[in-house]
Amino acid sequence: MNVKTNTLQVVHTIEQLRRLLDSMDRSSSTVGFVPTMGYLHEGHLELVKQAKMQNDLVVMSIFVNPTQFGPGEDFESYPRDLNRDSKLAEEAGVDIIFAPSVVEMYPNDGGIRILPGPQANKLCGASRPGHFDGVLQVVLKLFNIVAPDRSYFGMKDAQQLALIETFVRDYNIPTTIVRVPIVRENDGLAKSSRNVNLTSKERQEAPVIYQALQKGIDWLLESVSPEEVERRIAEFITSTSSGAIDYVQVLDYPSLGPVTEETNEMIIACAIKFSTTRLIDNIIMSTKGGYNVSNDDEQ
Amino acid sequence: MNVKTNTLQVVHTIEQLRRLLDSMDRSSSTVGFVPTMGYLHEGHLELVKQAKMQNDLVVMSIFVNPTQFGPGEDFESYPRDLNRDSKLAEEAGVDIIFAPSVVEMYPNDGGIRILPGPQANKLCGASRPGHFDGVLQVVLKLFNIVAPDRSYFGMKDAQQLALIETFVRDYNIPTTIVRVPIVRENDGLAKSSRNVNLTSKERQEAPVIYQALQKGIDWLLESVSPEEVERRIAEFITSTSSGAIDYVQVLDYPSLGPVTEETNEMIIACAIKFSTTRLIDNIIMSTKGGYNVSNDDEQ
Repeated sequence: MNVKTNTLQVVHTIEQLRRLLDSMDRSSSTVGFVPTMGYLHEGHLELVKQAKMQNDLVVMSIFVNPTQFGPGEDFESYPRDLNRDSKLAEEAGVDIIFAPSVVEMYPNDGGIRILPGPQANKLCGASRPGHFDGVLQVVLKLFNIVAPDRSYFGMKDAQQLALIETFVRDYNIPTTIVRVPIVRENDGLAKSSRNVNLTSKERQEAPVIYQALQKGIDWLLESVSPEEVERRIAEFITSTSSGAIDYVQVLDYPSLGPVTEETNEMIIACAIKFSTTRLIDNIIMSTKGGYNVSNDDEQ
Repeated sequence: MNVKTNTLQVVHTIEQLRRLLDSMDRSSSTVGFVPTMGYLHEGHLELVKQAKMQNDLVVMSIFVNPTQFGPGEDFESYPRDLNRDSKLAEEAGVDIIFAPSVVEMYPNDGGIRILPGPQANKLCGASRPGHFDGVLQVVLKLFNIVAPDRSYFGMKDAQQLALIETFVRDYNIPTTIVRVPIVRENDGLAKSSRNVNLTSKERQEAPVIYQALQKGIDWLLESVSPEEVERRIAEFITSTSSGAIDYVQVLDYPSLGPVTEETNEMIIACAIKFSTTRLIDNIIMSTKGGYNVSNDDEQ
């Protein structure tokens, strides 16, 4: 990636952002959008890298959205550091950071809500009721404010991605969702800010998660049933590491319903606990044209 | 209004519509949007007239939206006549009719829904549970498909207008909602396709509704309380006609909550039954700068 010296602009209001975007000729130049809650890590920068390659201008939002936090969750203590984020974003080539206040985003509340369907209660959503209502709310607002040609989401949070793809499809939202592959360590462990909480023994064991998912793909290609694949993955992880299974699921993607004959894409997703550290990972595979594995070899 | 000979185009798919709209230079020309369920009447043509005056191009959608009809309602038997509508629309100056099929609008269903807040349970909404979920769903889809600069809604359906204004405001939807005043007969009766169902005696009595609403404005300007104004309007109507009160309400607009000191606009809305014919009417008045009556004298 080129390190080019662009001048990052940081704006805090919708009006300022619209003024900047209106000065562009939108018929001849494209906007790539990277929504974040800030405190940027390598995953975010991978989104920027993709956006930068495919668009003339990259807009990043930094907004810790209160409506997607539950009552017991860490909205107040969620880390915020706009100076640090601005430097990282500028180095990565972001053109505009949109960092609104809560009042700027939610000045009124007429009580209208976006209610997700059955997708929201699967995987991690089962333990976070209402979380995805808030995600869809803020995402719709941000899409309307930024009007991006393309919007970039990481495949690490596969459930969020599934919901947003479904929302965009079912409501004709005029942006293209770009899936950005999971960034992994050399040994295959998905990068996460939580990895530092692993003991060195756990860190050595943790790559078993990705190994198990890859075995899962092989078993699915051999026509082993989804239920049996889930069982084997769980057994492989627990027999070769100290990890405990939160869930292992093989589902249709992006509906997150059961795999059927109409399934075009499947996800194998899992959440594994190493003492107090909960790690998630997944592989999405296409079943079109005879179970071709896709979306996973590009990393 | 000029009768000009434009060539109306009728399209049935989203792709056809987008191709037409993409061929315009959207930075220098504006699109006005008139969403309808077809079977056009004078009210619709008034929306077109306004849209025509304020925009370079007028798009009308004609779509009987199944998701806003309840189980006992008349989705199947709702009148449909695209030939008749096309002629009327062309005469009024519509440039493009977008008349999609149900499958074109709802090819998939991931189960995501737009849930209105407390506004939906007031006035006529009390007896139509789920109706406004469907209205907001189709309106969001249509806004995303058409991307109109301005969208035209009649003030006759004041509750629908209130919900859509709130949705646009709270979700930053990039269209301007234009309120089009109620079209009235010379004696003040709001035009409605239901007026033909009145007996000639009832037709003579029916202007009492608008007279009562106007008296209501006077009483509010004299600082009579909303509750007392509701009571007096009901009494005026029942004592001078055979109309029976379904509801008379004085509310904050567009929240449809109670009138408070922060109220900027009020609505007086009523539904009155003449034997089997139910008529609705309303007046919206601004309370900014000392109870100036607005939005009602322009007709």
